[in-house]
Amino acid sequence: MEGFGDLLKIPEFLHFKTGNSPMFESSTQIRVRYAETDQMDVVYHGNYAQYFEVARAEAIRELGFTYKDMEALGTYMPIIELQCKFLRPAHYDDLLTVKVMLEELPIDHRIEFGHEVYNESGRLLATGLVVLYFMDATTGRKSAMPKELHDKLFPYFQQ
Amino acid sequence: MEGFGDLLKIPEFLHFKTGNSPMFESSTQIRVRYAETDQMDVVYHGNYAQYFEVARAEAIRELGFTYKDMEALGTYMPIIELQCKFLRPAHYDDLLTVKVMLEELPIDHRIEFGHEVYNESGRLLATGLVVLYFMDATTGRKSAMPKELHDKLFPYFQQ
Amino acid sequence: MEGFGDLLKIPEFLHFKTGNSPMFESSTQIRVRYAETDQMDVVYHGNYAQYFEVARAEAIRELGFTYKDMEALGTYMPIIELQCKFLRPAHYDDLLTVKVMLEELPIDHRIEFGHEVYNESGRLLATGLVVLYFMDATTGRKSAMPKELHDKLFPYFQQ
Amino acid sequence: MEGFGDLLKIPEFLHFKTGNSPMFESSTQIRVRYAETDQMDVVYHGNYAQYFEVARAEAIRELGFTYKDMEALGTYMPIIELQCKFLRPAHYDDLLTVKVMLEELPIDHRIEFGHEVYNESGRLLATGLVVLYFMDATTGRKSAMPKELHDKLFPYFQQ
Repeated sequence: MEGFGDLLKIPEFLHFKTGNSPMFESSTQIRVRYAETDQMDVVYHGNYAQYFEVARAEAIRELGFTYKDMEALGTYMPIIELQCKFLRPAHYDDLLTVKVMLEELPIDHRIEFGHEVYNESGRLLATGLVVLYFMDATTGRKSAMPKELHDKLFPYFQQ
Repeated sequence: MEGFGDLLKIPEFLHFKTGNSPMFESSTQIRVRYAETDQMDVVYHGNYAQYFEVARAEAIRELGFTYKDMEALGTYMPIIELQCKFLRPAHYDDLLTVKVMLEELPIDHRIEFGHEVYNESGRLLATGLVVLYFMDATTGRKSAMPKELHDKLFPYFQQ
Repeated sequence: MEGFGDLLKIPEFLHFKTGNSPMFESSTQIRVRYAETDQMDVVYHGNYAQYFEVARAEAIRELGFTYKDMEALGTYMPIIELQCKFLRPAHYDDLLTVKVMLEELPIDHRIEFGHEVYNESGRLLATGLVVLYFMDATTGRKSAMPKELHDKLFPYFQQ
Repeated sequence: MEGFGDLLKIPEFLHFKTGNSPMFESSTQIRVRYAETDQMDVVYHGNYAQYFEVARAEAIRELGFTYKDMEALGTYMPIIELQCKFLRPAHYDDLLTVKVMLEELPIDHRIEFGHEVYNESGRLLATGLVVLYFMDATTGRKSAMPKELHDKLFPYFQQ
């Protein structure tokens, strides 16, 4: 089964910045739980959404802010789009490194994160793209990025 | 919160057949579980992968075959790609209709399903695209679609 | 692996009524999802909590009421205790029958459901006991069973 | 909602050793994921099974062994019984401390772990009892604890 990891060669839809353009990046480690595997002996594909979520939460925490704070301040961030490519399987007890990449400072209600999942050998297992909206928790309407978060992110996008 | 359902207008990446081209289509009903909601009072986005999975399994069952049979015959179908757009939230206890659309009869190891999720009012909540590979369970290598499944699907693609 | 189903003989902690004492009983069918299996090729034990939840929701629906209605009326039902015994494993695509048994009409904030999970051959796979409290959604304090639910259940407990 | 944490006073079914009897104990920290919450704004009760699982896996790792190794050596550990009491709710982003207690060195195929879940303020949120069997992965029959694990645990049970 190990083999099907090489079925896919290139994640086409994700063209992450490779040069030295300013961006915000963060990495988190996640240990695969037994509950997350399925009878194909690999992590069930739907569980990557949680891995991305955890990595985004830790990325924001690194900035000195939390997603929890943001909800407390009245902003929700519903997921509007999710794209994943599964290149190689993740296995039980693997210690995954989940990268989060924010390539553009949001200018409106939309924020887009790139994700990459690596195993301990440094092999890329999966890539993801997650689009979220900033939403006013009271009205349910699109809103701008909270100033608190903007101020934390701004320095990363200064040349 | 109801409101953020209308944040997105058009699922761009899914261009399902609209004419009378031959295709295979199936619908399944799924009741939203409490466990599937999150504190935003909506279905957690990662759970749609399960809804799509259930609907594909039921679609194959309708053909008089099951995904379980396929594994027993030595073919696994790992998910290679998942794309979802979330247009409106699904809520606890909603009775969802999950559509599966197979627009092209696979000619190699690759099979691609389109999905649409509707609520009881007939409103489109989410769309999905899932790409799977046929894989030999023993070798872990890409394989062709099992003859048993091909024979069931073939009639749907005859003009 | 099939074998470990017989490891346990008797679920000791559940002594369901066997005579003709009045009680409320209901059964629901649930098809095992791929996502619910783990690499031991069986349903992950933590997922039975969801099966019990689904069966309770359907039991209440049979009464002409829904748990959703109850929350809308201001009563939550947090789970206070969960006990499960796993006698035989459930497998992917199994069509399970999940029984709910309410043996006593609540007289205060506490309600206790018994559960049994059977496979298609009628073999008992698991038993469960779930204790919930009625709670006022606003104050977070224990409350009595809503009159709407009490009135639906009352007739089942009349000799 | 905060309030329902105090609904229950004492977890009766767990009488953990309080004296200085020899035992093996371990603690693990787990951050609550958004996916793990439900619309009651608390961790869905079924997810505690995963928290206990993670804590047991980390406890075994501390011993210089892993559950993954054990499966590789041909021993599975199916869960036979799960008991949980939920005293106070866990919330999104809480950093939980999950304790594992092994009070008795197994003498046959049966092993029983106690669990306690604390929040950052040191308040006890939940208790759990999990019974597993050692099982031969090939035959599906009950087996003894693997010598590798026994040798790691033995020193903790010497007076």
